[in-house]
Amino acid sequence: MSLLVVGTVAFDEIETAEGKSGKILGGAATYIGLAASQITNDIRLVSVVGGDFPHAYLNLFEKYQIDTEGIRIIPEGKTFYWSGRYHQNMNHRDTLVTALNVLADFDPVLPPAYRNSKYIMLGNLTPFVQKRVIEQLESKPELICMDTMNFWMDACWDDLLEVISMTDVLTVNEEEARQLSGEYSLVKAARKIQMMGPAYVIIKRGEYGALLFYREHMFNAPAMPLAEVHDPTGAGDTFAGGFMGYLAKVDDTSFESMKNALIYGSAMASFAVEKFGTDRLVEISQEDIQQRLIEFVKLVSFDL
Amino acid sequence: MSLLVVGTVAFDEIETAEGKSGKILGGAATYIGLAASQITNDIRLVSVVGGDFPHAYLNLFEKYQIDTEGIRIIPEGKTFYWSGRYHQNMNHRDTLVTALNVLADFDPVLPPAYRNSKYIMLGNLTPFVQKRVIEQLESKPELICMDTMNFWMDACWDDLLEVISMTDVLTVNEEEARQLSGEYSLVKAARKIQMMGPAYVIIKRGEYGALLFYREHMFNAPAMPLAEVHDPTGAGDTFAGGFMGYLAKVDDTSFESMKNALIYGSAMASFAVEKFGTDRLVEISQEDIQQRLIEFVKLVSFDL
Repeated sequence: MSLLVVGTVAFDEIETAEGKSGKILGGAATYIGLAASQITNDIRLVSVVGGDFPHAYLNLFEKYQIDTEGIRIIPEGKTFYWSGRYHQNMNHRDTLVTALNVLADFDPVLPPAYRNSKYIMLGNLTPFVQKRVIEQLESKPELICMDTMNFWMDACWDDLLEVISMTDVLTVNEEEARQLSGEYSLVKAARKIQMMGPAYVIIKRGEYGALLFYREHMFNAPAMPLAEVHDPTGAGDTFAGGFMGYLAKVDDTSFESMKNALIYGSAMASFAVEKFGTDRLVEISQEDIQQRLIEFVKLVSFDL
Repeated sequence: MSLLVVGTVAFDEIETAEGKSGKILGGAATYIGLAASQITNDIRLVSVVGGDFPHAYLNLFEKYQIDTEGIRIIPEGKTFYWSGRYHQNMNHRDTLVTALNVLADFDPVLPPAYRNSKYIMLGNLTPFVQKRVIEQLESKPELICMDTMNFWMDACWDDLLEVISMTDVLTVNEEEARQLSGEYSLVKAARKIQMMGPAYVIIKRGEYGALLFYREHMFNAPAMPLAEVHDPTGAGDTFAGGFMGYLAKVDDTSFESMKNALIYGSAMASFAVEKFGTDRLVEISQEDIQQRLIEFVKLVSFDL
């Protein structure tokens, strides 16, 4: 089934204890799209870049059969740029530069062919932009998943709640779930968020995995413990890409299917962090993915 | 099979955002013993208390068929006392008072009947005391599991390494695993600790669960997400009690059995935090435990 991905396409510049990335391809939609493309096809990408965005990167998306008609190029503008430095333990980072550039005035226009998309992944963006995408859909999609962050809770609470009410799945991290709900317990937080609209709430816990809440059910997807974490940038977006890629592929939004989707998301995220930026995502094979999925099964299986 | 538990039996006084416990029964061996007693029998407890220790608490142990011959009572001494205050989020606590009292000179003497114990749980204590217990065993046990903490890494490194080398299972938290190994990655940390002696390394991650490492294998036991956490005191010890209780009951130390034991430990810990001190542990029924185990199965099950 078709998967519409909306989010940033950017230049990132990352520094870790192990080295510097230089200026590389980044952005939420990039990670989401590339991760999903390892699992499903018919992916449409909506974003905005400047005249400085290399054709080679557009070609990369096309190579992974990601439709780029929805990537608006503003020739006189510059592409969104982010640079950050990770602390030794990779759990904390300092943002060094955020230059919104063309993203500042982004008003997405969906190409007509995108307006019947069945699976919608709204990457972290201003709630206004996320809402504008939903409004342009001409048929009711199977599933809308949105990611957001604490910044929008501080900056535009009402807009944020409005978009959340229009979605089926919300992905947030622990801190964001607590801020959004006013509850410390993740169980209580998820219940409150479910009452805001989304039937499914996914709480991302980084190296500890993710929790899925649906009605009174809970599912815990572990993260794969890794000997080397090279660059955590984009792990959450890659997770979302694997998650939505799986759902679009199987075209089934049951709770059982959602659980598998979380494992796919976790598997894709476990690859993403192994190299700088998208380097590992564009290198892995289908065999690598299948092998990692087997490792996930082993990681949690027991027989009481 | 017989389970020997060595550790503190204490008075605790706990303060959380929800209230104060008053002076209650605490200590590592208490939590370990009570948790294990829900799963297996033939539990022997080695500890030391003062003349101020109520007979009612000794009777409580006996009620749970925990042998108390190994609890030395020093009439003129006072029982180990700890008090602490938890922060709002329960993940941090301040120790208000630590009074070692009779624990300061604790030199354990195993009653003759304890010296052939098959499963040995060494609760967090000075490595010297842990070693003295191992030295008094007259037959090789099936399994020795030890818990420790960062304090001993700072205070008596060589003693600690010597005891670690004599054990089969080491339980530490993430920070302790990193300090002990000098490795940030838990995968690398566990490998290094395995080379110090223990074939099995368990890394406790609190509300995120626990990881078990054995040779090149890993197993992730989740923690049960809870709506209410009343008092986290003793959760790690309760986990160890459930873990060793299960192993002693099934008398099987295979990796498959260890995985189940981790789930039992996680289930017992999930009860312990629901009320102050040991209140919940002495209240639950076998049906409660079976129900919680089923919830753990549901929490991690998927069918790719």
